[in-house]
Amino acid sequence: MENKEDGVSNGGGDVLHDIENEGVLLDGKDGIRRNWSGFSERNMSYAEPLLAKRTNTTSQIAIIGANLSPIESLDYEIFENEIFNQDWRSRKKVQIIQYVILKWGFALIIGLGTGLVGLFNNISVENIAGFKLLLTTNLMSQNRYLEAFVAYAGISVVLAAAAAALCAFIAPAAAGSGIPEVKAYLNGVDAHSILAPSTLFVKIFGSVLGVSAGFVVGKEGPMVHTEAASWWRSALLWRTFFTTAVVAIVLRAAIQFCATGRCGLFGEGGLIMYDVGSSKVTYSTGDVLAAILLGVIGGVLGSVYNYLVDKVVRTYSIINEKGPVYKIILVVAIALLTSCCYYFLPWIATCKPCPTNTSVICPSVDESGEYKSFQCNSGYYNDLASLFLNTNDDAIRNLFSSRITKEFHISSLFIYFGTIFFLGIATYGIAVPSGLFIPVILAGAAYGRLVGRLFEPLVKLDTGLFALLGAASFLGGTMRMTVSICVILLELTNDLLLLPLVMLVLLISKSVADGFNKGVYDQILKIKGLPYMESHAEPYMRTLAARDVVSGPLVTFSGIEKVGNILHALESTGHNGFPVIDEPPFSDAPELCGLVLRSHLLVLLKGKNFTKDRVFMSRSISQRISALDFAKAGSGKGLKLEDLDINEEEKSMYVDLHPITNASPYTVIETMSLAKAAILFRQLGLRHMCVVPKSQGRPPVVGILTRHDFMPEHILGLYPGIKPHKED
Amino acid sequence: MENKEDGVSNGGGDVLHDIENEGVLLDGKDGIRRNWSGFSERNMSYAEPLLAKRTNTTSQIAIIGANLSPIESLDYEIFENEIFNQDWRSRKKVQIIQYVILKWGFALIIGLGTGLVGLFNNISVENIAGFKLLLTTNLMSQNRYLEAFVAYAGISVVLAAAAAALCAFIAPAAAGSGIPEVKAYLNGVDAHSILAPSTLFVKIFGSVLGVSAGFVVGKEGPMVHTEAASWWRSALLWRTFFTTAVVAIVLRAAIQFCATGRCGLFGEGGLIMYDVGSSKVTYSTGDVLAAILLGVIGGVLGSVYNYLVDKVVRTYSIINEKGPVYKIILVVAIALLTSCCYYFLPWIATCKPCPTNTSVICPSVDESGEYKSFQCNSGYYNDLASLFLNTNDDAIRNLFSSRITKEFHISSLFIYFGTIFFLGIATYGIAVPSGLFIPVILAGAAYGRLVGRLFEPLVKLDTGLFALLGAASFLGGTMRMTVSICVILLELTNDLLLLPLVMLVLLISKSVADGFNKGVYDQILKIKGLPYMESHAEPYMRTLAARDVVSGPLVTFSGIEKVGNILHALESTGHNGFPVIDEPPFSDAPELCGLVLRSHLLVLLKGKNFTKDRVFMSRSISQRISALDFAKAGSGKGLKLEDLDINEEEKSMYVDLHPITNASPYTVIETMSLAKAAILFRQLGLRHMCVVPKSQGRPPVVGILTRHDFMPEHILGLYPGIKPHKED
Repeated sequence: MENKEDGVSNGGGDVLHDIENEGVLLDGKDGIRRNWSGFSERNMSYAEPLLAKRTNTTSQIAIIGANLSPIESLDYEIFENEIFNQDWRSRKKVQIIQYVILKWGFALIIGLGTGLVGLFNNISVENIAGFKLLLTTNLMSQNRYLEAFVAYAGISVVLAAAAAALCAFIAPAAAGSGIPEVKAYLNGVDAHSILAPSTLFVKIFGSVLGVSAGFVVGKEGPMVHTEAASWWRSALLWRTFFTTAVVAIVLRAAIQFCATGRCGLFGEGGLIMYDVGSSKVTYSTGDVLAAILLGVIGGVLGSVYNYLVDKVVRTYSIINEKGPVYKIILVVAIALLTSCCYYFLPWIATCKPCPTNTSVICPSVDESGEYKSFQCNSGYYNDLASLFLNTNDDAIRNLFSSRITKEFHISSLFIYFGTIFFLGIATYGIAVPSGLFIPVILAGAAYGRLVGRLFEPLVKLDTGLFALLGAASFLGGTMRMTVSICVILLELTNDLLLLPLVMLVLLISKSVADGFNKGVYDQILKIKGLPYMESHAEPYMRTLAARDVVSGPLVTFSGIEKVGNILHALESTGHNGFPVIDEPPFSDAPELCGLVLRSHLLVLLKGKNFTKDRVFMSRSISQRISALDFAKAGSGKGLKLEDLDINEEEKSMYVDLHPITNASPYTVIETMSLAKAAILFRQLGLRHMCVVPKSQGRPPVVGILTRHDFMPEHILGLYPGIKPHKED
Repeated sequence: MENKEDGVSNGGGDVLHDIENEGVLLDGKDGIRRNWSGFSERNMSYAEPLLAKRTNTTSQIAIIGANLSPIESLDYEIFENEIFNQDWRSRKKVQIIQYVILKWGFALIIGLGTGLVGLFNNISVENIAGFKLLLTTNLMSQNRYLEAFVAYAGISVVLAAAAAALCAFIAPAAAGSGIPEVKAYLNGVDAHSILAPSTLFVKIFGSVLGVSAGFVVGKEGPMVHTEAASWWRSALLWRTFFTTAVVAIVLRAAIQFCATGRCGLFGEGGLIMYDVGSSKVTYSTGDVLAAILLGVIGGVLGSVYNYLVDKVVRTYSIINEKGPVYKIILVVAIALLTSCCYYFLPWIATCKPCPTNTSVICPSVDESGEYKSFQCNSGYYNDLASLFLNTNDDAIRNLFSSRITKEFHISSLFIYFGTIFFLGIATYGIAVPSGLFIPVILAGAAYGRLVGRLFEPLVKLDTGLFALLGAASFLGGTMRMTVSICVILLELTNDLLLLPLVMLVLLISKSVADGFNKGVYDQILKIKGLPYMESHAEPYMRTLAARDVVSGPLVTFSGIEKVGNILHALESTGHNGFPVIDEPPFSDAPELCGLVLRSHLLVLLKGKNFTKDRVFMSRSISQRISALDFAKAGSGKGLKLEDLDINEEEKSMYVDLHPITNASPYTVIETMSLAKAAILFRQLGLRHMCVVPKSQGRPPVVGILTRHDFMPEHILGLYPGIKPHKED
């Protein structure tokens, strides 16, 4: 996949156009030349603009997972050419029914698959981690502390190394959260590795291993934020709803099955994981004030977290670039650090006497209880151990629980919070599949409970609900998402009555944190260099016109083009779309016929429907061409240039491009405000947009805009004088 | 507001263009002329096309509420002209801060206002209806049955007449549900009366009166379906979220206040109205089968309901058109019918003995109980009376309740269902504000409970939950909305565990009903003639090009135009957008400068910055013009043509249109597939779209497309041969 190169030589083509003599005169300040009437040059026609022969190499590669990868744009434009229209008109009813069945069948299969994968993931983690914790607890109850540590750390390191090996050697794209990659994909950025089967495999198993290894990570990867990022069709809503329903039903059936104890150490969580109790919730002014405080804390801590994650990810990228072995070493180092923290920190806590007025067994006998005895005598428990020596899910359950009020010492909560905060930062960026939700929820729940304990005399809500609000505030402070987080927390707790408080907390934390930096996933998107297009236009785009950012070289074809020219263009540029221009004698003056795609050109050339003279394709031939040959190939499949085998004689023949030309390309006039051009591009999910001249008597196309031409790096690189000023 | 007229005379203008000699040659079959190579003419340039001088009068008026009203389109296009850009560049930081504060301040006020209005509405209805029911019940307990009926029917009729009078005389736009109008508004259809203050006033008070009158209507009007209908910006999500949070907080505070009994007869509902109980819900195969059956019933009944509502609304429109007095008479007739049904039908039911094993007082003493004694002796109750002689909200509460299992006889449920079903159909379309949700939920709950009772031996879920599923299925069958209904039912019941079953029921009912007809609101949209643009293009649009539906006459202006010509154009057409064309000597050849709006022309003409000769506006003058003068006026305000006072001498002067011309209009080439042009138009929320010629040497603009040109009525009217075939 070559990047766009500068300067296609003119050898071999009388019909190959190179717009080398066109351009704009640039003012140093903002790039627009002004005339005496005060209007920008955009509004006036003029004779000989000069387009600098510039190329754009700013964003054609990006970091997917933990590896550099070339990227393309997805193309949502309806491609209307003769072949497709012919095919569409001849579709019989049975084919339409087939299509409908396939669509919904796939939705069903995806739902079933997702449900089963989630189930497998959960059961595996609970069993593996449960085994590790049981073994450790048993050894400790026999006072064999060193062996317990060796077992604990050893198992963790082995699991971590396995996860890292999977990631480093099989699918580097699976490292990290995956949310930035999915967000970019839904925005139209395509890279082969994002959704490859190997990536899926490593995501599943790597995540199971990574979480069981005890890392401060979560298994919840992509989630519902399609409303913010994607090119969305409302027809998709219905099918997504259906798929979600299938997942929910699969999981419910599985939970009922596992409730009979046939799933090993799998807990009784059910769909609702952290049932915070169903009593009617009332709150007072003190609660609202405490919520506001939590919001502010969440905002401040959230922006600090994002800042540190940013630094850590950049550092780890340098290490990861050195090779797979370095990736594994880094992972093992972090695993050791985590195990040491988890194992040794509880020794700091003092043993507390078991509460007398409770129905729960204390000290706990199973591995998920909240009264771990750790090194304490009978009748006593260690609260830090109850937080650390548990799965992360159980720790959250304990923090959210309203049965527990004073069992966690304030100092223990503080130590736990600090550990999770910094370990969470240190763990993101290593080469295992890792989610950010659980660490953030954990840390937020910890300081939420802390605040609840400190404010106890003044508030009515119980401390479990404060943990929930703390989690909400930290989620808002790091991720800056509002509706998604509300829905997720609602699902977790099954309680609508807290919604107003949760909303308030999210609003405040997001507003506070937005004053410092961006959301964590947006930051990561930027570090990875993914060319994400915002849904609004940047302010500085309003001072520029479409032609100001067009990059070249511009390669066009004639309506009936020499095969050799086409091959040459395909070999020497990385372009995926080429304008097709009709000239005399086929039209009175040169005019834009449409746009043709590289993938379609390759199929057409393979078919070898060439003619000796420059004539249209005969009807008999055009009717034989099947639209199926031109259908979009799966990721990584499809014809490549090397598959073509064209000899010298064929290279001097002609081929008619009209049947495969998209005769309805979206175009903008060259003086169109860049902001409006960007909005059009983004709203329609385009991959290519033709820029046409304003005045007559000039070549019919000025250039092609792609996603990369709208990126800040490209624009600000061309016009460094423009200050991107903030506008709400 | 004049409609577009045919044939603007050429008097008075050497620079007034009328494209009368352009057009397309139409093939009878599908409108496209084909050439020998099999390609549609779109792909080939040609010399002398012929644009039939056609006008479009298909959808410029529509029924808003109960009255015909002229409509306009909303315009979401960024209007970039020199005045606005100048203004935008000179915005100081303090102005930006002001803007932000205003934005959020308004969101806050709207939230507070909405919460208070909802509260007022609820309290009023409960008190008025409660008083009516109390009085009736008291009289009946004294065996004064005739007086009871007179009181019941009399109060209902008086309330109904008052509601109808408000509607008929003050704001006819307030009649009906309002959802079709809001759906259209969010789609970009603007009519002055939709959001007028008088409409708001009548909506509030008319709805209170109408519901208290006992009509089978609801008070819930617009709801969350912006994801389906509107031109949505993600920035709006955040502000909408904030406003919703404010409403929730206001209502919670009010509920807590009213729980102390200071709100009259207002019940203890709270935010969660129908708490179906918080026990863990499990279901068996029998439940799933019953749910599927409910889905199918809902789908069939839903499409029948829609069909009958369609017929009724059309009939009532004929009556309503005759005048306000007829509207009131119709309302009074329906009120009488409803009162008679509600009062007399319970006599059919037999008295049942009160259940012995319950903690609830039987017969009920307050007006909202579920064991109304009606005419029964002590120790007995009338189940039909418990459904009919209650507010609709209480009836729903009773049907959803899980405490009640066998208290409603199956025959009573059947009678109640039938009554609500037909009364609900008969009531929609009368001139009072009326919602469809409550009737549909009521009827659905009734047959849901019926099915639950019939299937009792086979299922595990209790009958209250079946009522909920029945309501869901009927909502899905009539309204065809999935996610919105799920969310609403979730809010009503505060129980996530039912979600999979609810989703299943909705999916089935929607799929079944979609096989017969469209959703009820979409049908009503169509009856009202609102020009709603779907988000996908119709299949027949793919055989047409942009120029095939352009309607005229095309009126353009020169860059510096004679004042008289502008006035003449404004007077003789109803157009709101005009292309501005630069000609020699200001450009080498005629070219499209941009688009200018009627509202901006009026402001410019009022300012009287005219010149004797045809020259540009001087910089000193252009800098004095303030962008604020051109800001979009509020609905119904803004300059009118009559406000201008221009004498003959001024009419022969020139005015420079460049400062107010949008120099970046969105354009499509004339051969662009109409489907793709429609998608562009809809996605960007445009009001005008310029169609430009493909080949050179022709006038620089072919026509302007507006929303009306994409409507099926217009297109199929032009090309009756096109069969709109179904494509999924």
